[in-house]
Amino acid sequence: MTEANVRATGPIRLGGTAGTTLRPATGAAITGGLWAERRRVNREISIPGAWDRLHEAGNFHNLELAAGRASGEYVNELPFLDSDVYKWLEAVGWVLADPDLAPERAAGLRSQLDETEKLLRAAPQPDGYLDSHFQVRFPGERFVQLPWGHELYCAGHLVQAAVAVHRTTGDDGLLRIARRVADLVVESFGPEPGRVDGVCGHPEIETALVELYRETGEPSYLARARYFIDRRGHGLLGDARFGPQYWQDHQPIREAPSVEGHAVRQLYLLAGVADVHLEDGDPSLLDAATRLWTEMVATKVYLTGGIGAHHKDEAFGDPYELPNERSYCETCAAISSIMFCWRMLIITAEAKYADLLERTLYNGFLAGLSLDGQHYIYANPLQVREGHVTSGTDGDYARVPWFSCACCPPNVMRTLASLEHYVLLGGDRRAALHQYIPGRYTAEVGDAPVTLEVETDYPWSGAISIRVVSTPTHPWALAVRIPDWVGGASLIVDGVPAQTAPQEGWWVVDRQWSSGDQIELTLPMEPRFTRADPRLDVARGSVALEYGPLVYCFEAADNTEHRLDDVAVDVTAPLETAPADPALGMVTEIRATGRARTHRPDAWWPYRPVDEAYPEPDSPVRLTAVPYYTWGNRGVGAMRIWVPTT
Amino acid sequence: MTEANVRATGPIRLGGTAGTTLRPATGAAITGGLWAERRRVNREISIPGAWDRLHEAGNFHNLELAAGRASGEYVNELPFLDSDVYKWLEAVGWVLADPDLAPERAAGLRSQLDETEKLLRAAPQPDGYLDSHFQVRFPGERFVQLPWGHELYCAGHLVQAAVAVHRTTGDDGLLRIARRVADLVVESFGPEPGRVDGVCGHPEIETALVELYRETGEPSYLARARYFIDRRGHGLLGDARFGPQYWQDHQPIREAPSVEGHAVRQLYLLAGVADVHLEDGDPSLLDAATRLWTEMVATKVYLTGGIGAHHKDEAFGDPYELPNERSYCETCAAISSIMFCWRMLIITAEAKYADLLERTLYNGFLAGLSLDGQHYIYANPLQVREGHVTSGTDGDYARVPWFSCACCPPNVMRTLASLEHYVLLGGDRRAALHQYIPGRYTAEVGDAPVTLEVETDYPWSGAISIRVVSTPTHPWALAVRIPDWVGGASLIVDGVPAQTAPQEGWWVVDRQWSSGDQIELTLPMEPRFTRADPRLDVARGSVALEYGPLVYCFEAADNTEHRLDDVAVDVTAPLETAPADPALGMVTEIRATGRARTHRPDAWWPYRPVDEAYPEPDSPVRLTAVPYYTWGNRGVGAMRIWVPTT
Repeated sequence: MTEANVRATGPIRLGGTAGTTLRPATGAAITGGLWAERRRVNREISIPGAWDRLHEAGNFHNLELAAGRASGEYVNELPFLDSDVYKWLEAVGWVLADPDLAPERAAGLRSQLDETEKLLRAAPQPDGYLDSHFQVRFPGERFVQLPWGHELYCAGHLVQAAVAVHRTTGDDGLLRIARRVADLVVESFGPEPGRVDGVCGHPEIETALVELYRETGEPSYLARARYFIDRRGHGLLGDARFGPQYWQDHQPIREAPSVEGHAVRQLYLLAGVADVHLEDGDPSLLDAATRLWTEMVATKVYLTGGIGAHHKDEAFGDPYELPNERSYCETCAAISSIMFCWRMLIITAEAKYADLLERTLYNGFLAGLSLDGQHYIYANPLQVREGHVTSGTDGDYARVPWFSCACCPPNVMRTLASLEHYVLLGGDRRAALHQYIPGRYTAEVGDAPVTLEVETDYPWSGAISIRVVSTPTHPWALAVRIPDWVGGASLIVDGVPAQTAPQEGWWVVDRQWSSGDQIELTLPMEPRFTRADPRLDVARGSVALEYGPLVYCFEAADNTEHRLDDVAVDVTAPLETAPADPALGMVTEIRATGRARTHRPDAWWPYRPVDEAYPEPDSPVRLTAVPYYTWGNRGVGAMRIWVPTT
Repeated sequence: MTEANVRATGPIRLGGTAGTTLRPATGAAITGGLWAERRRVNREISIPGAWDRLHEAGNFHNLELAAGRASGEYVNELPFLDSDVYKWLEAVGWVLADPDLAPERAAGLRSQLDETEKLLRAAPQPDGYLDSHFQVRFPGERFVQLPWGHELYCAGHLVQAAVAVHRTTGDDGLLRIARRVADLVVESFGPEPGRVDGVCGHPEIETALVELYRETGEPSYLARARYFIDRRGHGLLGDARFGPQYWQDHQPIREAPSVEGHAVRQLYLLAGVADVHLEDGDPSLLDAATRLWTEMVATKVYLTGGIGAHHKDEAFGDPYELPNERSYCETCAAISSIMFCWRMLIITAEAKYADLLERTLYNGFLAGLSLDGQHYIYANPLQVREGHVTSGTDGDYARVPWFSCACCPPNVMRTLASLEHYVLLGGDRRAALHQYIPGRYTAEVGDAPVTLEVETDYPWSGAISIRVVSTPTHPWALAVRIPDWVGGASLIVDGVPAQTAPQEGWWVVDRQWSSGDQIELTLPMEPRFTRADPRLDVARGSVALEYGPLVYCFEAADNTEHRLDDVAVDVTAPLETAPADPALGMVTEIRATGRARTHRPDAWWPYRPVDEAYPEPDSPVRLTAVPYYTWGNRGVGAMRIWVPTT
């Protein structure tokens, strides 16, 4: 590992020997637009507020118990409450590097971090073991409740938090605590006699240990991550209520033909698989990751990028089993998909990974957080019926301040807090701009830093200005991603239309660059109707509305003329854009037209012989769609993404 | 009430003054066919076996506790375990009148009945109060936990059991116990000062008290039934987790525009509403019942007749909210719909009520019982995915021997045990044959009995022979129902085609009848494709297959060439009938053809612009459908009712 190449301050600090095509940016700042506002709310409201939520919910109390500083019972039946603290700590770690963090806020977060670190120094057992659930509820038991215990899952999140804090601040206090836990994991598990030959019921330690290896250079962390991946899928976890695929123990990853079981577990594991490949180049791991990503994307991803079709086991369903109302689409699963996609993009430089990353980010992920930054939704439905609101069964669809199983909120926080790193990637002789977010980004091309400044109103407009701020003197290639939904992009470099054409999702301009060079990328952005494979039962005969990377939805709040379920949209009529309800922020709405079916409660029966057609809907109706990520922010009401056509 | 008109031996013994159009048969016996076999299994296996199930599940134990004959805790958290015993007792009561009940089986059931009656004599408190849950768990509390206590619900089922036993055997032992409970209800509730002004969270007492009034002539039972109906809907039950409509307390029934909330509660209440109207002729009650039935049938009934779209609150959904996989369609809800439809048929003589009754009986109801008579399903899905079977989440879809909330099994038993009464109705000058089940049925036309013998292979064939066995000497009208799915029925009376035509669902032949007169009714029966209102999201672009009154389904067991979800059916290709898998009994299967979409896991993404059509499915496939009521009897596997079209 050469020092020159290990300056990334976000997730995944790659060593110079990594055999990847692309490498994370070494510096990044988001300066405006949709994401800057989400990040402002994140650092000013969500992250500071989580300190209170985590205290109210007992997470800190449990750690206080472990530290012998409090008395009482472990709060909550769930064994993984520590992990919520760690994910929040990771968010604090990333956000401390945010140049927009005001000094007084930084001081406040710093003090919360210090207090938490002090607690975490006091909590471990003498040999470094730290897990409040087992220390308090099952003292003496250690690494024996692997299926449901979440010990390594919690350890993984502690490691990730420590890496984040160390990477952004250089402070190694948390890292020392985390390393003792990681060292214990390394020493306790393994194929060697006298060790536990097992894996955790919830993957997470894999990707965390690789990050710890990146941060410390200690190869045993990488080796143990690899061990956990190799040993999973051999039935070590025993029977599961939902089958061994629930915890990814049904098949070794290299043999699995399809994504199965609990979606977050599957994709955290795949992120770890990609991470190990990133470091050791094992082609069989890349084969597995590619195969499973491809299978997933072909038949098991919602239009929103969301994944997980079953509520009961939070799991992938059958191919094309993507119910709308009962879409699970856990917010954490969207995050896991973003993590996995980003790693695959780094490994392969293939634009399709950035396409899904973007779609998931703007839709399946962002919908999980309310606009006020103080409410969350766990499962993200693609459709809500009026009656679920009025019948008191709206619990599943209401945004709430916190959950008893609060995995999602701090996961959102850590993702938003590190989002600036998901924009630009460097490479041996290229810089790849794969997301369009206003800001200033630096990546290394070869050994030399390239800094780009991006100005755009994306996703509301497809006009993207890129300025070369600093560049090495040797030629290099700028690759800008042309999203898969774009037709007819144009690229102008210093006033001259690019002579090349986009290929496989990238528009590459390879030349000698100078500071001040200006690139104008235009991604024609018109509202568009999208249809689904006829095997998607709930989308048959229907269309969805998209605009740029955004999936739109129809909410009752904007569509009061008729019940949403009585409406059909006319796909041949023109679509218009306009500013949306200001309650949603600076957002573009889309206006469509269609027809509504008059509700006829005196009709005898809603079924008829196949040769008797139903009349076309009769009542003209104007329809308004808003970005899916804004749904449910004006109270709970009916909502649809897929709407039948006239 | 004249004695001449009170000889009905099944549910609803109407007094001669009842202002109804039709009246229940006074004698009935099913002698063959599908239902005779279901009833054989019911009396030989299900009902005797329930004795053991009810002992194993603690229902008898709880009553033993109340009787002071056992020690220990009340078993099960649910407060209504007594009602399962009562529903089973009601089934025993009806089945004791079954002429096909073998003497040794009759003796066995009689002895179980006697033993239970002895227990129920010992269990009440001195003033007759009987409810094991409150006696054991909340001694001293009485009629104060009305929302969730189910006291009047249990009392109602005790009354119905006692009425059944008294009506078929003349024994009044159980009736005396039930009357003391009913008298206590009558004395404890009401608008008078010092009484409880309230209603039970679960309707049932209403219909039961009317039946007790019919059996005893005591008008205070009818008056209290009316009181409970009048007082419901005024918020007496307070807040409910799922809103006041959950327990039908959101609106007075006369004002409610639509069926809402818990489906069984809604329809038990409506059965009671119809029952009170049957006795006192209150037109406002008939208005309400008609309005709500009509609203329900227009938009909230599954093709199977099943009702209840929400799992969470077991409730009706929005109009056209009829999900396939998450159809709740509780077996008890189907029974409640049969009860309600039958009462509306008796009141109005309108054939549409018999149409829905038949559809529900053959599909939504019958699917709830396994062919072996020893397994039950609580919620009846219209679609099951392969993955729910293989992922260990098949619990919802597997038939099981009993439930911890075992309302459905004994409800099925009492319905099958009294089914012979749901075939023929008498009237002032007409006999109305509304179901086609082989047997011998007697109804009074005016004051004179008419006996008909029905021979048919229905529902497998539409040829129905009706013989007049005995008839009064004055002319009367025979009305035979022409189901709404029939086109081109024919009717031959003593060799001569009928000169009249069917009108509003009935074919009426009004003449002087003689013993031995032979009527040949032919209902042309061909497999047919059915489509749904375009607002049914899950049926859009799809068809279902029906045959006579039967809804068919495609099961993986019969369709092994392709995944069921990859298949599309060709509605223009001919359909064939053939004997089905013998494991399903003497059943007709339907063979269709279609095409399957080849599963392409390497396709990038299952969504595309609206103007890019998906290719038609390519691989020809033969498809086999079996009656929906037989699904899931060969293990749990994928199943669909609605299938997309090529």
